[in-house]
Amino acid sequence: MSFRTEHDTMGEVQVPADKYWGAQTERSRNNFKIGPEASMPKEIIAAFAYLKKAAAYTNTDCGVLPAEKRDQIAQVCDEILAGSLAGEFPLVIWQTGSGTQSNMNVNEVIANRAHVLAGNKLGEGKTFIHPNDDVNKSQSSNDTYPTAMHIAAYKMVIDVTIPGIEKLRDTLKAKSEAFKSVVKIGRTHLMDATPLTLGQEFSGYVSQLDHGLKALKNTLDHLSELALGGTAVGTGINTPKGYDVKVAEYIAKFTGLPFRTAENKFEALAAHDAIVESHGALKQIAVSLMKIANDIRMLASGPRSGIGEIHIPDNEPGSSIMPGKVNPTQNEAVTMVAAQVMGNDVTISIGGSNGHYELNVFKPVMAANFLQSARLIGDACTSFNDHCAVGIEPNYAGIKKHLENSLMLVTALNPHIGYENAAKIAKKALKENLSLREAAIGLGLLTNEQFDEWVRPEDMIGSLK
Amino acid sequence: MSFRTEHDTMGEVQVPADKYWGAQTERSRNNFKIGPEASMPKEIIAAFAYLKKAAAYTNTDCGVLPAEKRDQIAQVCDEILAGSLAGEFPLVIWQTGSGTQSNMNVNEVIANRAHVLAGNKLGEGKTFIHPNDDVNKSQSSNDTYPTAMHIAAYKMVIDVTIPGIEKLRDTLKAKSEAFKSVVKIGRTHLMDATPLTLGQEFSGYVSQLDHGLKALKNTLDHLSELALGGTAVGTGINTPKGYDVKVAEYIAKFTGLPFRTAENKFEALAAHDAIVESHGALKQIAVSLMKIANDIRMLASGPRSGIGEIHIPDNEPGSSIMPGKVNPTQNEAVTMVAAQVMGNDVTISIGGSNGHYELNVFKPVMAANFLQSARLIGDACTSFNDHCAVGIEPNYAGIKKHLENSLMLVTALNPHIGYENAAKIAKKALKENLSLREAAIGLGLLTNEQFDEWVRPEDMIGSLK
Amino acid sequence: MSFRTEHDTMGEVQVPADKYWGAQTERSRNNFKIGPEASMPKEIIAAFAYLKKAAAYTNTDCGVLPAEKRDQIAQVCDEILAGSLAGEFPLVIWQTGSGTQSNMNVNEVIANRAHVLAGNKLGEGKTFIHPNDDVNKSQSSNDTYPTAMHIAAYKMVIDVTIPGIEKLRDTLKAKSEAFKSVVKIGRTHLMDATPLTLGQEFSGYVSQLDHGLKALKNTLDHLSELALGGTAVGTGINTPKGYDVKVAEYIAKFTGLPFRTAENKFEALAAHDAIVESHGALKQIAVSLMKIANDIRMLASGPRSGIGEIHIPDNEPGSSIMPGKVNPTQNEAVTMVAAQVMGNDVTISIGGSNGHYELNVFKPVMAANFLQSARLIGDACTSFNDHCAVGIEPNYAGIKKHLENSLMLVTALNPHIGYENAAKIAKKALKENLSLREAAIGLGLLTNEQFDEWVRPEDMIGSLK
Amino acid sequence: MSFRTEHDTMGEVQVPADKYWGAQTERSRNNFKIGPEASMPKEIIAAFAYLKKAAAYTNTDCGVLPAEKRDQIAQVCDEILAGSLAGEFPLVIWQTGSGTQSNMNVNEVIANRAHVLAGNKLGEGKTFIHPNDDVNKSQSSNDTYPTAMHIAAYKMVIDVTIPGIEKLRDTLKAKSEAFKSVVKIGRTHLMDATPLTLGQEFSGYVSQLDHGLKALKNTLDHLSELALGGTAVGTGINTPKGYDVKVAEYIAKFTGLPFRTAENKFEALAAHDAIVESHGALKQIAVSLMKIANDIRMLASGPRSGIGEIHIPDNEPGSSIMPGKVNPTQNEAVTMVAAQVMGNDVTISIGGSNGHYELNVFKPVMAANFLQSARLIGDACTSFNDHCAVGIEPNYAGIKKHLENSLMLVTALNPHIGYENAAKIAKKALKENLSLREAAIGLGLLTNEQFDEWVRPEDMIGSLK
Repeated sequence: MSFRTEHDTMGEVQVPADKYWGAQTERSRNNFKIGPEASMPKEIIAAFAYLKKAAAYTNTDCGVLPAEKRDQIAQVCDEILAGSLAGEFPLVIWQTGSGTQSNMNVNEVIANRAHVLAGNKLGEGKTFIHPNDDVNKSQSSNDTYPTAMHIAAYKMVIDVTIPGIEKLRDTLKAKSEAFKSVVKIGRTHLMDATPLTLGQEFSGYVSQLDHGLKALKNTLDHLSELALGGTAVGTGINTPKGYDVKVAEYIAKFTGLPFRTAENKFEALAAHDAIVESHGALKQIAVSLMKIANDIRMLASGPRSGIGEIHIPDNEPGSSIMPGKVNPTQNEAVTMVAAQVMGNDVTISIGGSNGHYELNVFKPVMAANFLQSARLIGDACTSFNDHCAVGIEPNYAGIKKHLENSLMLVTALNPHIGYENAAKIAKKALKENLSLREAAIGLGLLTNEQFDEWVRPEDMIGSLK
Repeated sequence: MSFRTEHDTMGEVQVPADKYWGAQTERSRNNFKIGPEASMPKEIIAAFAYLKKAAAYTNTDCGVLPAEKRDQIAQVCDEILAGSLAGEFPLVIWQTGSGTQSNMNVNEVIANRAHVLAGNKLGEGKTFIHPNDDVNKSQSSNDTYPTAMHIAAYKMVIDVTIPGIEKLRDTLKAKSEAFKSVVKIGRTHLMDATPLTLGQEFSGYVSQLDHGLKALKNTLDHLSELALGGTAVGTGINTPKGYDVKVAEYIAKFTGLPFRTAENKFEALAAHDAIVESHGALKQIAVSLMKIANDIRMLASGPRSGIGEIHIPDNEPGSSIMPGKVNPTQNEAVTMVAAQVMGNDVTISIGGSNGHYELNVFKPVMAANFLQSARLIGDACTSFNDHCAVGIEPNYAGIKKHLENSLMLVTALNPHIGYENAAKIAKKALKENLSLREAAIGLGLLTNEQFDEWVRPEDMIGSLK
Repeated sequence: MSFRTEHDTMGEVQVPADKYWGAQTERSRNNFKIGPEASMPKEIIAAFAYLKKAAAYTNTDCGVLPAEKRDQIAQVCDEILAGSLAGEFPLVIWQTGSGTQSNMNVNEVIANRAHVLAGNKLGEGKTFIHPNDDVNKSQSSNDTYPTAMHIAAYKMVIDVTIPGIEKLRDTLKAKSEAFKSVVKIGRTHLMDATPLTLGQEFSGYVSQLDHGLKALKNTLDHLSELALGGTAVGTGINTPKGYDVKVAEYIAKFTGLPFRTAENKFEALAAHDAIVESHGALKQIAVSLMKIANDIRMLASGPRSGIGEIHIPDNEPGSSIMPGKVNPTQNEAVTMVAAQVMGNDVTISIGGSNGHYELNVFKPVMAANFLQSARLIGDACTSFNDHCAVGIEPNYAGIKKHLENSLMLVTALNPHIGYENAAKIAKKALKENLSLREAAIGLGLLTNEQFDEWVRPEDMIGSLK
Repeated sequence: MSFRTEHDTMGEVQVPADKYWGAQTERSRNNFKIGPEASMPKEIIAAFAYLKKAAAYTNTDCGVLPAEKRDQIAQVCDEILAGSLAGEFPLVIWQTGSGTQSNMNVNEVIANRAHVLAGNKLGEGKTFIHPNDDVNKSQSSNDTYPTAMHIAAYKMVIDVTIPGIEKLRDTLKAKSEAFKSVVKIGRTHLMDATPLTLGQEFSGYVSQLDHGLKALKNTLDHLSELALGGTAVGTGINTPKGYDVKVAEYIAKFTGLPFRTAENKFEALAAHDAIVESHGALKQIAVSLMKIANDIRMLASGPRSGIGEIHIPDNEPGSSIMPGKVNPTQNEAVTMVAAQVMGNDVTISIGGSNGHYELNVFKPVMAANFLQSARLIGDACTSFNDHCAVGIEPNYAGIKKHLENSLMLVTALNPHIGYENAAKIAKKALKENLSLREAAIGLGLLTNEQFDEWVRPEDMIGSLK
């Protein structure tokens, strides 16, 4: 491999000759060989491209950057967003906790790429654009990295998470309506209980996701606040007047998302409670998904020796040894995702709680965990929807068998003969392996006709939604 | 100890003769000797009193309970709320996961106490009020316990948590304003950075708590939904028409809080996402408090060999061996509370994710952890406010010493001489133990007059809040 | 209430006249009104009694405390251990993170109680025993509190946790042997799989608990290390020669447990990795118990519309609305305990990670969470054992029905006709609702006799344990 | 892209023409588009290669696989281990929870690659090696995947984690010895305390890591147990006699690690407590590293307005805006890793607790989190060692200044004048800004000569290690 010499304020560094990054990126690459290469999420790099372009536009508007430099910077940012510089961001999550090195990675790539776009050769001559004085003008890693976190997180939630959840929610809603007349046994404590409809059962899942979506959306206002303009410690040192408001407007314009400048920049650098808050909502949704996916696989269990009240699609051979076996694999993916998100929530909370003075230095780990959770939830909901939920159908035979056997239909007798007499019937039926009717008549507590009138599963499902 | 005989549908049980509880309570007491006695939170018992009274009123309004029974039930509920029956609820958290046994504990105490209030002797004769058929009428543990959870949780948040946080927030806000002109060194990565005011530093804490309060309040709508009316599985079996809406109205009236019936009762029994959601906000606040309390103790550290930029009140001798030592004990209590709440969040999430079919049976553990977190945060904020925050004062000598020494004032030179030249000055000053001015002049990069004009800490704190 | 005046180095304090505690305890009571009163675990107080007595003996042996003082101190310690001074320790967990105030609480109670035992009146005259100079001699809160943590934690594990787990383990082992010939269907992914015996299924639970016990015992060596002798910062300032080794020997003698002095006192004050380590094992056991209790309640589910392969004891009426319902309540208590312990593990890890310099100041919260987990696991295992596990019996009818239906017996054909042909049989049987035999013959893949010879559930359970 | 047709028991699938994988891999690729492609850890794939080779050898030894097939299988396994088939494993973590699809991915690649190695064309003709009947012979995903988890986890711990920790431990040990005579102020509660040596301070870190290593090694015995031989449900159906013991011996031989067959295969499939246990030790080490890295960055803080008692290496420019700033970046990477590992522990515990019946289906998420933690800890320790710890030096000027100022040297007077008199001296000195000597003399509590004799920092550091 051939190298060229780059320098920073600490001296010279040998950098791979064909790479746009500079001295500081290379130092980080060498100093942080922790985990797989290039683990810094690509969504963070894209977010940096939005913000560097916005900063350039704002700097020019504020009279501190020539339009020529603005346009060169913006051109490279557009290339980054288009993905054509994907190999230029080799750094890892496990670097400085401020993300300074990834900020400088972007600054260096922009400066060097602009140099080449302007017709120069990489590594030859002084670049027209300086990584610090131009690309980073009116910025600090301390305000750019948290800004990139918010841009990337918000965008992922809007582009991936919410659409995935909504898709699944809509399917479950449709199923809930389609199954609204399918009366089945209920189960509490895993034990037989009074009946409900399969549609009602599914309506609970819909309600969980509706509440989860609402909770997630409630957090977006905090996430829309951008740190940019706070620079080094939140005071905005070295920024022109009006910069913070305007740069947020440019970011909002470029991303199409309702970002605005944070009212308090000191919080925005020193704490990442907005990330903690939004991830809390993702964790709540993970909790809901664990319940929903568990229920659906238990209801579908069998085919002959399980609960067997619904059918889910057969997607793949389920076993490498047991021929013909099919498993609820989509549910398993969803529940594994839920476990991941619940763990990520702890990582994010620990990171969020450990800011000191003017800066939280757990930024990259918080960003990476948030983005993983938001993507996994969105993708898993979509996958579960497309490959499982859409194909759920009642197993009428299984439902009928369980409903007819249920002893808990006895509950309908409480208002007529009292809880204690009703209990006698249920206990006798179970002990002597009788039907409820047989036990009730046998105990002389009611007549055949009264049984017919009072014990009707279809009347026990209420008028509640 | 003397006993009397009580019975339930499983047979007879010996119960302490002087206790109002009945057979099912006693069974639970004997079957669940796990941890300290009577650990079921007293706030849950109080919440049951509200709801049993509300149910009695609604049942009478709906024509299914005589007014006489309503009034007897209500009278005992008022006694429970007044605290006069405190010794009658001996059960533990670690019982059935539906809380059925605590529901029955309340039902039994009400039936027996009403019997005595009506002039009878405890254990003699059949009670006029039946624990199941009257006190529990139109109810199931499956809808009462989650209703009690929401009542107790909501009330604790309103009565203890929010007032505590607001008190601390207001004090920090006042400090932020009082300290708005105290210029001091900033620190990022724990290292010297550009200056800000002490008021700005505190404004970040205020902003964290403001966002936390907003996040917590955002969750209250979900928490205001009550399961009551869903009975056994969410269908509302054995409830009169209109019962669910009306009983929530009575609860709202009796508690003075904006409760309403849950739109979807299936979710309300089978999942406790509202508890997960609100506790997520408590956890966020714990994360904020960890940051704030850490910062304040680090800023106050010393008295001679620490950071020493603020004074906090001396409350107690700090050491049993080191004479004259005083420690930031309130901060330590707050950070321990934060650790507890962060762990409780995991317990609640695990509990919340493990509901099956029509019922979540992690109710008591979720309730107990929520109530502990909500109380601890409220109490700890109040304690920290009263015994620490109100007494915080700047240590002007310490602030001045650090500010004058700071090399990062060099940042103000970036726009004038560029980042790289500025770095040379800082490095020379550090290496040769010079002041910034000496290094700058020594390098010939600017004049004395320029230094005076450009490097002014009081101009480096921005116009940002 | 009447008061007397006590003083400490900060001045005078009014203390309830009839209480043995002194000025510092009273300050803490007033300064830390956080959560319920007297929440500092009583096991910690008892541990302090052991260590104060051991310190007095060692100090006398080392020639720095008169035997008369030793004996007076020891007498009060014995009273504390006997429980007769239970009302004298009013402090909360949420105090100083070093536990100094509880250390002083013990010191003060000992000094004042000794004063009274010597025939004086509480609050009159100078005490012969000084809380700091005598009771706390050769000690600091910084080494006593972590010593008390280890004593209390170790004792709880030995007295409650391990016996509870072993009891349950032994019962499950006996069940495993009793059920060794009960062939039943296996389930993987919740779906029907090849058979095993019920005894084999239970042997997995036994193996989990055996490994858990081994893991827990592996951690006890670290927990047996005592900080005492490190005093203020780990150097042992103000201790006589040989004190640390000897005082640990006295503690070992008084408690009957194999404590020894920590090799490195700096770790022992500044970190509590031994608590983290042992609680990690408790958490592992919680994970195991969640699995075991879940399985057993799923296997017992029904009575008519569940899996129904085992019977568990009927302990209480399960529902306040559904007559005759019985639920797996012991399993629910166990799984709630598991959720609590998993959350406590996070609290303990956060606390453990946040020590700074020479002292970790999350001591009380770590101690309280550890002791709760250790007690809950022990108690819950005992309760689950006594009220559930001992009564588990096979439901032969349910087991037989499921086994006969199973399609996965087809797996036995793999070595004879290959995986793909075997799959064809299973798929045909499921689709056309045939028995395996019918499908196999129908496809012409084997003869009736071959089927009899090859498909024998009792031959499919292996010779593995 | 061109495709070829592959089939499995569900029918035909179009597979990219140049890839060795088959129908089931392709189904999984299409059905699980969750997160980034190919996220299944490559260490798991390598572990599969070891075990497939071992199974082939064992099958041949047991007489159920021709030697020719064994050799063909082994040849491809060696290619996988050599890394030459890296692009053939495209599946994600978020697939079926048994990892079946990755097991089949390996089976399919081996069958097809062997076909090509034997001179055939990919996709043409029937393969001599059948993915199920040959490569998977005597195996099920249910025993291969957990075996691969243990192989990969154990290997990572031995190859990466332990060497990294030991390297750091040895450096800190050397520093502890080098700094054994550097007397400095101690700090408890972040406040000035009695002195110790810098070497003593570092010895606490060494002791933490020593205990962590011991704890980790304690868990390896459980991790050395292999599930292989249990096949579908733990009974070992379709395995030849003696297979389980022998296959573990081959794996031990091929990996050079002390693996053995699990005594209880039912646990080994249905629970992953060994992973929970070993990760618990990794989490403990993360807790230790958080403490150590925090301390070192606080001790190094400054350069002029922090604690400043040690120097750490300057590795990179620390700020994109503040010239000359250098930050403790290695410490930040370590603490971020610690936060990640602490969160991963929750994910693993949740996964581990949710096994049902004969199989835990959170296998891939548990494996991925374990491997991430084990790698990150090892890499981070190495990085922190090489780029920070080896370069730590005392800042003698800072140490001296703090030591001389310390009021807590007064503790040495306790045995001479009592705790209360000593407190008076410290309080007077602080209040009147005096030296301890001045205050002591001023109060007439001791003479100049006594002060010289009694207050000697170098005598206050004990004889403890």
